[in-house]
Amino acid sequence: MTRAHSACKIKVQILCDDEIAMGPGKADLLEAFAREGSISAAGRALGMSYRRTWLLVDTMNRCWHSPLVETVQGGRKGGGARLTDLGTAILAQYRQLQADLDQASGGAALHALTATLRERPAPAQSPRSPAKH
Amino acid sequence: MTRAHSACKIKVQILCDDEIAMGPGKADLLEAFAREGSISAAGRALGMSYRRTWLLVDTMNRCWHSPLVETVQGGRKGGGARLTDLGTAILAQYRQLQADLDQASGGAALHALTATLRERPAPAQSPRSPAKH
Repeated sequence: MTRAHSACKIKVQILCDDEIAMGPGKADLLEAFAREGSISAAGRALGMSYRRTWLLVDTMNRCWHSPLVETVQGGRKGGGARLTDLGTAILAQYRQLQADLDQASGGAALHALTATLRERPAPAQSPRSPAKH
Repeated sequence: MTRAHSACKIKVQILCDDEIAMGPGKADLLEAFAREGSISAAGRALGMSYRRTWLLVDTMNRCWHSPLVETVQGGRKGGGARLTDLGTAILAQYRQLQADLDQASGGAALHALTATLRERPAPAQSPRSPAKH
């Protein structure tokens, strides 16, 4: 996940061996599936190609005990894709983990850090590289 | 920061406008400065070029009210670079924030998430792309 908390951005990835089983982009994609109902439409909503969308779904589906997204044959709209019950549960748990971490990041350590942070960086000086030290 | 907590990786960035004032790579670099005492040696310890190391230092130094790393002229070893008091403090506060978040991530939400996570992904099926849905 990626969340702004004042000047603090927290990204959480759930790893399955060396694959990303859940992360900011995949969680957004699950939400798009819940809304859009097909791989094409969910990908389009996030500005991704069909192939990239499909590969993200394939990775997610292979990382959990059962698929998070399932394709549906036939019907009035000629088939689609939707979240499984597990997909719905994983999305909710991931968002909860984000919320827990956003709350935890609001404590003393972040307050101390941001007390000496500028609002914007000072301008870069020339030359862009000093003598070696 | 990047930390493994069972299958959960948490990365925290402190942003100053659109620059990264502190993150996993920059914190590791501050630690290398404290150990190595020069830009060249700190960069080398992390496998980075002198120029890249210098640019990371320059960004950090411009994002806070005063520099985190200062260069030192002369001396027996012909100059070097070391953490300022602010650099030492920011590094400690960032590591504390990491520790707070690692602890927060160990709760119920992560436990629920990982309960249905495979140890490793199921093998990819061919074809690598399905019919459109």
